[in-house]
Amino acid sequence: MVDFRVERLDISTGQTLVAVMHKKDADLYDFQHSDRIKLSTKKSSLTVILDITSDITLVKPGTLALFKDVCKILHIRTGTKIQVTFSGKPDSVEFIRDKLNGNSLHYKELLSIVKDITADRLTDIEKTYFVSACYIHGLSSQEIVDLTKAMVATGDKISFRGVTLDKHCIGGVPNNRTSMIVVPILAAAGLTIAKTSSRAITSPAGTADTMECLAKVELPQKKILDIVKQVKGCLVHGGSMNLAPADDKIILVESPMSIDAEGQLVASVMAKKYSVSATHVLIDIPMGPDVKVKSKRDARRLQRLFEDVGQRLGMHVKVIVTDGSQPIGRGVGPLLEAEDVIAVLRNDPLAPQDLRDKSILLTEHLLELAGKPKDLATELLESGAAWQKMKDIIALQGPCRKPKLGQYRYNVRSSSEGKIIAINNKIISKIARTAGAPLDKGAGIFIHRKIGSSVQKQDILYTIYAENETKLNLAKKYVQGAYVVN
Amino acid sequence: MVDFRVERLDISTGQTLVAVMHKKDADLYDFQHSDRIKLSTKKSSLTVILDITSDITLVKPGTLALFKDVCKILHIRTGTKIQVTFSGKPDSVEFIRDKLNGNSLHYKELLSIVKDITADRLTDIEKTYFVSACYIHGLSSQEIVDLTKAMVATGDKISFRGVTLDKHCIGGVPNNRTSMIVVPILAAAGLTIAKTSSRAITSPAGTADTMECLAKVELPQKKILDIVKQVKGCLVHGGSMNLAPADDKIILVESPMSIDAEGQLVASVMAKKYSVSATHVLIDIPMGPDVKVKSKRDARRLQRLFEDVGQRLGMHVKVIVTDGSQPIGRGVGPLLEAEDVIAVLRNDPLAPQDLRDKSILLTEHLLELAGKPKDLATELLESGAAWQKMKDIIALQGPCRKPKLGQYRYNVRSSSEGKIIAINNKIISKIARTAGAPLDKGAGIFIHRKIGSSVQKQDILYTIYAENETKLNLAKKYVQGAYVVN
Repeated sequence: MVDFRVERLDISTGQTLVAVMHKKDADLYDFQHSDRIKLSTKKSSLTVILDITSDITLVKPGTLALFKDVCKILHIRTGTKIQVTFSGKPDSVEFIRDKLNGNSLHYKELLSIVKDITADRLTDIEKTYFVSACYIHGLSSQEIVDLTKAMVATGDKISFRGVTLDKHCIGGVPNNRTSMIVVPILAAAGLTIAKTSSRAITSPAGTADTMECLAKVELPQKKILDIVKQVKGCLVHGGSMNLAPADDKIILVESPMSIDAEGQLVASVMAKKYSVSATHVLIDIPMGPDVKVKSKRDARRLQRLFEDVGQRLGMHVKVIVTDGSQPIGRGVGPLLEAEDVIAVLRNDPLAPQDLRDKSILLTEHLLELAGKPKDLATELLESGAAWQKMKDIIALQGPCRKPKLGQYRYNVRSSSEGKIIAINNKIISKIARTAGAPLDKGAGIFIHRKIGSSVQKQDILYTIYAENETKLNLAKKYVQGAYVVN
Repeated sequence: MVDFRVERLDISTGQTLVAVMHKKDADLYDFQHSDRIKLSTKKSSLTVILDITSDITLVKPGTLALFKDVCKILHIRTGTKIQVTFSGKPDSVEFIRDKLNGNSLHYKELLSIVKDITADRLTDIEKTYFVSACYIHGLSSQEIVDLTKAMVATGDKISFRGVTLDKHCIGGVPNNRTSMIVVPILAAAGLTIAKTSSRAITSPAGTADTMECLAKVELPQKKILDIVKQVKGCLVHGGSMNLAPADDKIILVESPMSIDAEGQLVASVMAKKYSVSATHVLIDIPMGPDVKVKSKRDARRLQRLFEDVGQRLGMHVKVIVTDGSQPIGRGVGPLLEAEDVIAVLRNDPLAPQDLRDKSILLTEHLLELAGKPKDLATELLESGAAWQKMKDIIALQGPCRKPKLGQYRYNVRSSSEGKIIAINNKIISKIARTAGAPLDKGAGIFIHRKIGSSVQKQDILYTIYAENETKLNLAKKYVQGAYVVN
């Protein structure tokens, strides 16, 4: 046990709680980089991760630099005397090493790892070993089930009574805002569907961003329960609800390498569904050259995995593989996508047929899962019942003033005559994001022509919308390669 | 391209160069956590890794917080306008992903990874993916060769003419200071052996720490070349020489998980040897219950790997497996180990026989490797030629005033009568380190009894030495379990 004088740093550590010691002290007292140390005052104690530096402007020998979040927890400030003792690594590090060595993990061990990830007790290095071990060795169905349960157990839960539907799309396809059509149809059919969605991370819009053009999406749990009780459905942002919070922290470690550990993907999706007590879940796997799932073989493997894990979790899971070769709908970006959704719900003759068809297909599968006649999908959409239900949901969540479409516009025209044979989802997304989506809700792309259309030279392929000129000009730089005309 | 105002932070980033942006700006301009961004002024530019925070005490929207090492490189300060552009990930990240996916890497790809590790262009997360991929998938002999060459190519080299001997011990056994005996014997035999050694990381003393009780060990390269020219041998610290510098950076990522990736271990050792142009190398693998290599099977696999890689590198490599069940010699800690070495070199009748025997054995193997009669080992030691050679080496490296043995002492006595059946190397090391070794050169342990001895109750097993009373008292707490008497 060694005494140190606290030097408070006026910045936060970010995720993990860290203390910084001078190298001389570390050598003297035999502390190593990344050791856990326990900081104790008379009143409280806290275990943090040790960082070692030789930079005396940061910390002098005899003092221990603590970031402000650590000071806050311990109620200490610069000058406070603090006792430092060596604290072993958490047990979870041992379990991560087991997985690295190719052993399977059980629920108790996965729970220990997930608890420590949730509480920011593991370093980036340790979390990365966990993710890469799961990626390389893979996770068995039972491990995925246990990981799912562990992620659910370390977060909040919402419970609805009886049959509760849910859907999830693996993503990668621009627009594709089927949830905003599927939910009101099913709710109109009297079925419960409390849809929590994410905001865009790398895409031009998530369902939460798009719904936010029409209604508030950040709602307290109590209000969500109340809305679903009244109108059977809702469309809210799941991110603010602390459902399976370990998931986001795991994603932070996966994203720098752009790896998609299959087992972790399944656990991530199922944990979110399990947390909102879904009983019947439809998984949509788009397949195409530039989305996550590129081949039938991969799609089928993922399908079997979802179904197997679902069964072990006691959920009814159905998986369908859909066309992911081009955007679904015509708008890309929050407002443009919201307008597509409204056009379909209002049975507008100009509504995008592909978005309408896909939404009906998904709804029919969910109706079947719930034991209802599938014809209800088209009936409730065409009768206007779904649109009325959507208006009810908007009214209860709290209507928003619809944003304006970006006033700076640029038409991208075909440079040759021929047939459109490919549209690159990734380039379309990049253009829409550079134009300002999803934060500029009126920014994005309106698609005039899709795969299979014949075009003349100079025909408009798509229009870029931006809320300011700079972003429009930046977005124009990426148009190369978005369309292939041959 | 976006303009930011610089806010200089008065601290260093440590290894990787980092810039911190407020989350609002990151969202606005579509930057992601861990993205590479290029910072440009009129005069210079630099690519750094992006960190994103919502903490406005650290960075406000519109400003970019830069650590002082980044400011120094770019010659900028608080208030400077700087242009920020997105910069793709280095190619090496793609190669790391290849290895994660089970593909083999070639020299060009490993060189790209090692270059980026050496230049601190990869994040901890990316480096960890590399290490764990190599650990789980393993490295082929050819990959180890290529990794070795890549590590050598990114560091300094020293070249000696003709046959140049070297030795390395995989470690884990306290004392075991054979190099300080092997080197003077071989140099006395007229063979070149420029021994670079490390300081202790987790052990009570490294050869560099021990040699430093007798002579300076931090020498410029020119001086080392000169000494070896004059007396054929030297015993210096390799750490200050920038030999295969990627190695230490890789070890920093391995150590939090205490994993020892076999391929990386072999590449690490061979890169150090290759960097000093060794042509004939002896590898000592101690085997025992509490050292790195625990079974004959593991020892043999490692042996074959070293030999195979050595051959592919054009080096003559011999591997021997030795007894790692207890400390070699009687002292543990820099000065106590140095005294064992001197006793052996001076043919002191009380010199530890096990250290003498092992040193002669290793020397004989190296003599054989170099095509010399092995009887020379005992001859040159017994004649005093080796001791004279050691004195020459000390004189040229620059003699040090010998430190004093710690004046605070504690005898650990046997609590029962019987035979000593085991000594725990790890506990012995922990006691010696807690007593102050390696920084307190006079701290450590003197071992009175070894495995096989019969002891009476109250017989002294070992004595702890410390330079101050507090450390002696701390060290006493760990004595439990160091010896098993039965």
